[in-house]
This record gives sequence, C-alpha cells and structure tokens, in this order.
Amino acid sequence: MKLTCDGIELAEAIGIVGRAVGAKSMNPILEGIKLTAKDGQLIIAATDLEVYIQRTICANIESEGTTVVPGKIFGDYVAKLKESVVELALLKGDHMTIKHGDNVGDFQCMLAIEYPDIVNIDKKPHFSIKSEALRDFIAKTRVSVGQDDSRPVLKGVLCEIAGKRLTGVSLDGFRLSKINKTINNHADDLKVIIPGRSLEEIRKLVGDDNGEVSIIIDNKFFQVNINKTMFAGRLVDGDYINYAQIIPDSFTTNVVVEKSAFEFAVERAGLLVRSDKVNLVTVDASDKTVAITSNNEIGKISEKVAAKIEGRDIKISFNAKYLYDVLKAINDEFIKISFGTELSPCIIESAKNGDYFFLVLPVRMS
Amino acid sequence: MKLTCDGIELAEAIGIVGRAVGAKSMNPILEGIKLTAKDGQLIIAATDLEVYIQRTICANIESEGTTVVPGKIFGDYVAKLKESVVELALLKGDHMTIKHGDNVGDFQCMLAIEYPDIVNIDKKPHFSIKSEALRDFIAKTRVSVGQDDSRPVLKGVLCEIAGKRLTGVSLDGFRLSKINKTINNHADDLKVIIPGRSLEEIRKLVGDDNGEVSIIIDNKFFQVNINKTMFAGRLVDGDYINYAQIIPDSFTTNVVVEKSAFEFAVERAGLLVRSDKVNLVTVDASDKTVAITSNNEIGKISEKVAAKIEGRDIKISFNAKYLYDVLKAINDEFIKISFGTELSPCIIESAKNGDYFFLVLPVRMS
Repeated sequence: MKLTCDGIELAEAIGIVGRAVGAKSMNPILEGIKLTAKDGQLIIAATDLEVYIQRTICANIESEGTTVVPGKIFGDYVAKLKESVVELALLKGDHMTIKHGDNVGDFQCMLAIEYPDIVNIDKKPHFSIKSEALRDFIAKTRVSVGQDDSRPVLKGVLCEIAGKRLTGVSLDGFRLSKINKTINNHADDLKVIIPGRSLEEIRKLVGDDNGEVSIIIDNKFFQVNINKTMFAGRLVDGDYINYAQIIPDSFTTNVVVEKSAFEFAVERAGLLVRSDKVNLVTVDASDKTVAITSNNEIGKISEKVAAKIEGRDIKISFNAKYLYDVLKAINDEFIKISFGTELSPCIIESAKNGDYFFLVLPVRMS
Repeated sequence: MKLTCDGIELAEAIGIVGRAVGAKSMNPILEGIKLTAKDGQLIIAATDLEVYIQRTICANIESEGTTVVPGKIFGDYVAKLKESVVELALLKGDHMTIKHGDNVGDFQCMLAIEYPDIVNIDKKPHFSIKSEALRDFIAKTRVSVGQDDSRPVLKGVLCEIAGKRLTGVSLDGFRLSKINKTINNHADDLKVIIPGRSLEEIRKLVGDDNGEVSIIIDNKFFQVNINKTMFAGRLVDGDYINYAQIIPDSFTTNVVVEKSAFEFAVERAGLLVRSDKVNLVTVDASDKTVAITSNNEIGKISEKVAAKIEGRDIKISFNAKYLYDVLKAINDEFIKISFGTELSPCIIESAKNGDYFFLVLPVRMS
C-alpha cells in the first residue's frame, strides 16, 4: 500500500470518520481507523459496532492495500497537516509512514482482517430527503428522545414512511415530538426505530448542507449517504409505544404568543429554579398576558408576555427545562399553545400550518 | 436603596465582578456581590478574600443604600437583561427587586455590614504601565509560574521595580521566565511577589485594552485600576528564590529558527508522547537543520526545521509541553536558542533585541 493524497482532504475525512472510533474500547482494533487504497481512491472507515462512518477521497495509488491505523493519534497528527501533498506508505505490513515536506510520521498499525466488516444492507427501501428537511426532522425529534437505558425503544425515534410522507415520533414520558416531512423516490411503506445517538451523528454530518440525503433501510440496519460520507447504523429492536392515546384531542384554552419572547421568559424564570429538584415554573394565561413565574427561598422571578388568549383562564406548572428545550427547537415567529386541564399535557405548535407539534406534560402541584 | 441604571452596563459590571465570587464558600456571604448606591454611582464589588474586584457604573439614585445580592443567580439573571433601563430597589431591608419592562426579579439579600471590607492600601508606591506591556509581561511570566502548593513563593511572579524598569521573574523548577518593561510615574524601588492567580484575573480584565493601567503596591496588598474596574489582591509573603545562579552564562551552540515552524514541529512531535509519563522530544541541531523527534510503542514522529547554527552540533531532550508552552508565549518571527551541555538549561529569546528570555531545563536521558 502506497499512495499520495491531499493532506487537507485526508485531515477532514479522518476528522469525520474519527467520530465513530471508540474512546477506550475493550477491543483495541476498535480504537483504529481502517484505510483501504483501491481503484484510485482511499477509503477511510471506522465503527464502534453501533455506528459506522466511511468517507472516500481521491488518491494517487502506487500500490493498493489496507491497514488499520491508531485512530486518536493518527487523527490528531493529520489534523495538524498543512501540506497539500502527503505520501502514505505501509512498511513491513505493520507500519504506516506519512511523509509531508521533510517531516515523517510513523505509526504502528493493526491488521485490517481483524477489523469488523460493514453491515451488508439489502438495498431495497430507498428514499431521499432534502438536507434541510432532515435537519429540521432531527432538531425537533431529538428534544424528546429518552435517555433511560431500561427503555431502549424510547432512546430511538420512530420513523414511519407512508407514501411520500416520513413521520417522526419521540417521547420520554415528559415530552413528545411529532413531525412530518416529504420524501422522494420512495419504495415501500415501513416503520422502524432509529437510535437517537445515530441521528445526532447524522445531524453533525448533514451540517449546513443544502442538497439531498439518500437513505436505505432494511430489517436491521440503515444507511445514510451525505455527500462523500456514508453513515450506517443498527435499528432499535422492538415495538414502539402506542403514542396516539397520549395525545389529547380537546382543549379549553388556546394561547398564541411570540415564540422568542416566551422562550426568553421561560429561560429567565427557569434560572432561579435550575438547581431545584423540579425546575418548576408556573404559566398563568389570562387577560391578554401570559405570566411565567418561579419562586423559591432565593427569590422570585416574574415575566410577562403579551398573548392572544381564547377560552378559559388557566394556571399550570411545568418543568422549565422541558418547556425551554421544546421552544429552542422551534423556528416559527409565533406559536400556539393549547391547554386542557391543569393536569393534562399541553400542545405546542406553529401558529400557522406547521408540520410538527410538541406535547409537554405539566407538573402536578401539591 | 432605590435607583435606575442601564441594564447592559449592569450586566457587564456584574459579569466582571462576579469572577471574584467564591463558587461554594464556607462563608455564604462570600457567594454574594455587594451593591452600594452612593453619590450618583452604583458600586459593584466582590471578593473571595484572595482577590477583590470592584466596578462603578452611573446610576440615577432615588435613595442611597447598600446590600449583598446572591452572586450566581443575580449575575445569570442580569446577563439575560435586554432592556436599557432597569430599576433596583431594596425592600424590607432583605429583598432586592429588579424591574425591567413588565418583568420583575426579586432576590433574597444579605446584610452589607457582614461583607468583608476592601483592604486599605497605603497609596504610596504608584506607577502606571501601558496595557500592551502589561499584557506581554503576564503572557510571558505566566508560563513558568509554579503550581505546587508546598512552595507558595513560586506560585507568584517576582516583580522588581528599579527606576523606570519593571522586571518580572517566574520559575517552577523546569522553566524560568524573565521580562523587562518600562513604567511611568514611579515612586520608590521595590521587590514584591504577586500571585499568579491574580495576574490571570488582571490579564482577563486588561483584555485587548490599549490604554494604560495604574498600579499601587504597599507592603501586603496591591491594587490595579483598569478603566472602570479596580482589582486588588494580596502579595505573596516570603522571599523569592535567588534565581540568578540558575541562569547559565556561557553557551556552545546558538540556533536561530523561525518561531512558528519550530513551535509547530514541537507540537506535532509532542502529540505522540502526550500521554507518556515524560513527554519526551529530542532536538537535534546539526547541518543547517533542527530535527525534532519523538518515539514510543505507538510510532515515531520526525520533524525538520531549517536553522542557522553556530557552534558544535547538539542533541538534547526536552519535555515537549515545557518547550511548547514557552514557544506559544512568544510573538517574535525568529528566535535564538542557546545551548551549553546536554544537561544544562537552554535559553530561548528573540533573535533580535528582545526584552525577555526563557530558560528550559532538558530531560536527562538514561
């Protein structure tokens, strides 16, 4: 294995792929990054057995080959490359040298044959989605993804395809997110659970890209292609909760407020109670105003936001953090908040016709 | 106590003064920030008994008074202020309300009489120094400040005034920094030790200011005035080490290199050994080149930098971190490195006439 490639491109690729490298793995090979020189390309890949990231860059290949370099040090070393041309060469089968200018790095490698293979995906159900739509899909569902290891199903996002529509649902017992997006080139309807952690990685890979992302899903795995990067991961096994019954269908109060003003008020009121066991803030909607208040032994914070209120007055308490996380994930200028009783969840959605809603459970006051 | 002031100015002042607030203090009053409304000004002050920061802002005072607000929550709350006019009022002697627009914060206060007084400094030895010079003074001396609690004198910087010259020296057993700066309006010669931690705070307060800083020093305390902020702190008690004998006076090799190229080479070679017990890199000066190499069981890194070499060839090992820290603190384009034996410290200074030098101890190779 011997090749030359662009140092900056190599550094970028290693930086992206390196996110799949396990920090301290039980299996040392998983601390490595696999390099494969083949067909005029250098394929850079890493996996922690849960997610798999692969990126391909152009290379001038003198001899083909494959090896596994130590991920952390190799990544940090190439991140410092300033030269545009670097030469990689595998010596004696277990040493990778990287030459640039007068400088040489030489790293002890591992055998590529011991590195886990990428999962083989049945290429059937295939669709594409605009990067912007996928970004919004993840931004809204990630808010409500569960963190509890004892309920692995809730640590994922339910992704349902019906016709040209992709629906995402996440819930953690306190909040629920639901969002619909339009997709292209769809094959079959399906219903799978994608781990929240994978969606976080995909969110980073999508970045501020403005193109399209293609997605392949089979029974156990899924694969996402974003520009020159391929991401693959396992689906969550199991059936998702029947969430439809949680969503209330009648409301007694509808409130429309400016999103940023309400978010800011919740954030400020929440400051006081952020170290309390429950970050309790009270929302009091009456007389064209929503008052958000918090209080404890340190003091009292009271914020007021102008609102359009329909229906009866309501005073209801929330965990400030849950409310704030939801508000932060919304881009609309105005939102509609629908309340039922003081004990039933409220619905937060765009004041216009939006493609999403959030449900937030109140805190029962003693 | 009742007043109005500018919310943004208040937030800025609290942000700066808040750095002197103890995080979790044995004495709850030290978790507070003292506010004093007097003579058309709001004086904002905090201390952790080691450092004291005070800032004054203009205020419209309706009634004078003083109190101590809870530092963390009050600081975070005012940091979120967007309104230009806020009203502060002390109610029932132990509640501070802060009103802005329709919003109110109300915080439980403590008694100002329980808050420690600022130290009284004898105003005699008084001088001023350009902010830029002070910034460089701190940047170069901080590198070698000791961290060892068992040697408190070395946790400070020796500051010596003789005529119009301020000399700073720090050393930690592995490195030594020495720098000279010109001062103005000097009174008497003196020799004191200023704690490294205080200089760190002063560095932040100076920021990128381009004016002058005035400094007052007495037997036990010192005070620095930077724009609208006053900083005060204790001097370190004790005699500084007689460092003159450590500095070698004859050298066998002088090397001139481009600073950034050498720094970069040391940084890259150091990557490999950063988790080793000693971050060993070897510097080999011969034949118009300085080679910087590192190696261990993971691999080997070799960097080369063009150099002008006078005297005998030398191969000498250093802790990469010590070398790198020193190089990072230097702004000159070219540096001169002077070596004696493989066991004696090297001197790093500007290749031109600089006002500083660093001494770095080599690692004795087995």
